[in-house]
Amino acid sequence: MFWQRKDLLGLRQLTPEEINLVLDTAVPMKEIIGRKIKKTPTLRGRSVVTLFYENSTRTRSSFELAAKFLSADTVGLSASGSSVAKGESLRDTGLTLTAMGVDVVVMRHPASGAAEYLARCIPAAVINAGDGTHEHPTQALLDMFTIREKKGSLAGLKVAIVGDILHSRVARSNIWGLTKMGAEVRVVGPATLLPPDIEQMGARVYTEVEAALEGVDVVNVLRIQLERQQQGLFPSLREYSRLFGINQKRLELTAPDALIMHPGPMNRGVEIDPQVAYGNRSVINEQVTNGVAVRMALLYLLTGGEHNAISH
Amino acid sequence: MFWQRKDLLGLRQLTPEEINLVLDTAVPMKEIIGRKIKKTPTLRGRSVVTLFYENSTRTRSSFELAAKFLSADTVGLSASGSSVAKGESLRDTGLTLTAMGVDVVVMRHPASGAAEYLARCIPAAVINAGDGTHEHPTQALLDMFTIREKKGSLAGLKVAIVGDILHSRVARSNIWGLTKMGAEVRVVGPATLLPPDIEQMGARVYTEVEAALEGVDVVNVLRIQLERQQQGLFPSLREYSRLFGINQKRLELTAPDALIMHPGPMNRGVEIDPQVAYGNRSVINEQVTNGVAVRMALLYLLTGGEHNAISH
Amino acid sequence: MFWQRKDLLGLRQLTPEEINLVLDTAVPMKEIIGRKIKKTPTLRGRSVVTLFYENSTRTRSSFELAAKFLSADTVGLSASGSSVAKGESLRDTGLTLTAMGVDVVVMRHPASGAAEYLARCIPAAVINAGDGTHEHPTQALLDMFTIREKKGSLAGLKVAIVGDILHSRVARSNIWGLTKMGAEVRVVGPATLLPPDIEQMGARVYTEVEAALEGVDVVNVLRIQLERQQQGLFPSLREYSRLFGINQKRLELTAPDALIMHPGPMNRGVEIDPQVAYGNRSVINEQVTNGVAVRMALLYLLTGGEHNAISH
Repeated sequence: MFWQRKDLLGLRQLTPEEINLVLDTAVPMKEIIGRKIKKTPTLRGRSVVTLFYENSTRTRSSFELAAKFLSADTVGLSASGSSVAKGESLRDTGLTLTAMGVDVVVMRHPASGAAEYLARCIPAAVINAGDGTHEHPTQALLDMFTIREKKGSLAGLKVAIVGDILHSRVARSNIWGLTKMGAEVRVVGPATLLPPDIEQMGARVYTEVEAALEGVDVVNVLRIQLERQQQGLFPSLREYSRLFGINQKRLELTAPDALIMHPGPMNRGVEIDPQVAYGNRSVINEQVTNGVAVRMALLYLLTGGEHNAISH
Repeated sequence: MFWQRKDLLGLRQLTPEEINLVLDTAVPMKEIIGRKIKKTPTLRGRSVVTLFYENSTRTRSSFELAAKFLSADTVGLSASGSSVAKGESLRDTGLTLTAMGVDVVVMRHPASGAAEYLARCIPAAVINAGDGTHEHPTQALLDMFTIREKKGSLAGLKVAIVGDILHSRVARSNIWGLTKMGAEVRVVGPATLLPPDIEQMGARVYTEVEAALEGVDVVNVLRIQLERQQQGLFPSLREYSRLFGINQKRLELTAPDALIMHPGPMNRGVEIDPQVAYGNRSVINEQVTNGVAVRMALLYLLTGGEHNAISH
Repeated sequence: MFWQRKDLLGLRQLTPEEINLVLDTAVPMKEIIGRKIKKTPTLRGRSVVTLFYENSTRTRSSFELAAKFLSADTVGLSASGSSVAKGESLRDTGLTLTAMGVDVVVMRHPASGAAEYLARCIPAAVINAGDGTHEHPTQALLDMFTIREKKGSLAGLKVAIVGDILHSRVARSNIWGLTKMGAEVRVVGPATLLPPDIEQMGARVYTEVEAALEGVDVVNVLRIQLERQQQGLFPSLREYSRLFGINQKRLELTAPDALIMHPGPMNRGVEIDPQVAYGNRSVINEQVTNGVAVRMALLYLLTGGEHNAISH
């Protein structure tokens, strides 16, 4: 099977076969990261721009390293200091990058739908690295890669996502992806932070964390964004921690070998206890490694690579 | 013919032969950009620093990609966060970069003459990426490359430059370059924004845009810099657009196959109408591609490359 | 002899043999910088992150170029715009970078001891690029490399360090390193800026610059940090210059062939006179070149390179 899409904009549009193609391609990529000499010439001469209208060292570094491990060139643009500050339209910025010979634009943007708009404007491949509260598909793909690697398959698993579901593009992309792959998704958080359309997306909604964790195979703990609290949408941090924080005691409700995940960066002691975060069920650091692998796979597929062409 | 200068500081000093050498060298460079695998090892081991005391994603990215397509290493320094903030002199910054083994310093600086000063201080090659209101030679070279490619030659063409001529280093470099190559240059803009010495530079001055556009082969539309308006030098944007904005109707005054150019980023609907900017006479996106090609040519020539040594 | 440590955190811990290993390894590295084609594939596939919680273009550029001259990949992270701003702990940032496959983390941090803490948390190699007022070991190593290259040996030399000793990590690292190698170290500066423990470190303390300079082989002039003056710890700049500034006249007190050093960036006319800074005894620009060489040596040794494996 070959990758046919120009872009990766979200998991809502992808078929289970496409998701499997990305995850399968990421397997040999992960082996490259593990090698002492990490570089392969696969994308030599290709150029990747990271165009970040919101700060994110983590995601940007992950994409840059993924590109470099495949020998692509990278150029980093951030909103401050860019033509954006001069009022240039996103379309013009995209056309300019394309005209410069850029092959892939990795974009993070505060507006939902920005990646789709850019993708329609330009011939270069666009990867959505997070758009508003809409999607963050590479995070969900690395989450699914991690679960599949540990559990063998996604079908039939129970996954609980805990936190501010309403504003979380990570939650949305995970729900689209996991339900497509046959997993049962449960979401739980403060009632004010549960979007009304969530059941139509295929997730089951809980307001008590104990009920949501009952027997699950995976707990994906979302990051508390402190600015939401200032908007009055949130209980106090202490209250949140008491009601929804994932600690050792709550972990006893899950399946005995349940995985603990977090997209990072963590607020330890708020949404997750240090013992849980660094405990033996935590796969949080492996998620980071898998993030590089999944992004290598996507850069490879979007620039015309064929699956199985990577040497093991 | 060989390139003999250590630096590229402005077009005022260059001979027509030198300009032709750059433009001729850029021709095969452009073919490299067009290739699926863009990289050539020409500048492997050479290092290029972009030293930007003013923000410019566009120009900086163009130089970085040009360097990378030739396999040079790049390091980006910007004024914020640099030794500059610690009060280091430009001379000391330049000597430091030279001592680190840097081969080419690409500098943008708010002070006219800064590139020339730096070039006198250090043995490394200096490329002026814009100094105050003085010169922006790589922009003018890419403009000339674009015109020559479309029209076959520059000699005898009529080129109108429209906008804030007084503060435009793009206009100044274009006037020096185009008149040297035998083109007729017309400049037009608000009377307060036409410098008194412009006729001595060889350009013809107009205050009515209709008269300036009459029969021209090229219209180069400058970007309106909004800060000038705040200084009271400018009519309102609406007024400017009415008096000097390039729209479909005004285009009818030019030669039938006149090219529309803009250095970007555009204020669409102010100095240029969207229909014109994206119309079939616009070469604005090609200018961007040609900018990378011209910068590749310069990096190549300034590090000792010989013309005709690039494989086609 | 082989390098055995995972990290380079300070000179206090190093043995004279280890210091010599770094300096010896830097000798062939310096020859690479001098070559027209500077790149060697020694660190191809290795990745180096520069993690700077304080601004420093100089040191960061030096490390980036050192990495690139050895063909390593580099990713630059700075505090603004990083996960740090989101409150992530240093430990988690380090674990994340390690999980991404990073081989070396070069860190500058305002807190003394930060590099040691990071090094304990992560398996990747850590290079301390300056931590608070504690150590700046690569600066001291490049200073020692420069002295050894010019004088043949460090043992028995008299070195005067002039300025704000109290807050200077450069001074501290130099004192640890130089005394270990058998040099006599004298420090001199305003009485309020001489730390009480300095004699236990092995340095001799002076409060009059003339006495300190008497017969020395090397004068290392520290940079005046203007923020100290605002804290009232300092005389006025004019006063400082009069009392401690290094000028032609004071140079006459030193040995006739004494070297003048400065870590940069200089406040010319304050702590050092331009005639001295650019005079024939100044090795300030060579220090910069040697900084790249020493950092190349460290990157090489910390990623498992063996001395004498570099081709001359």
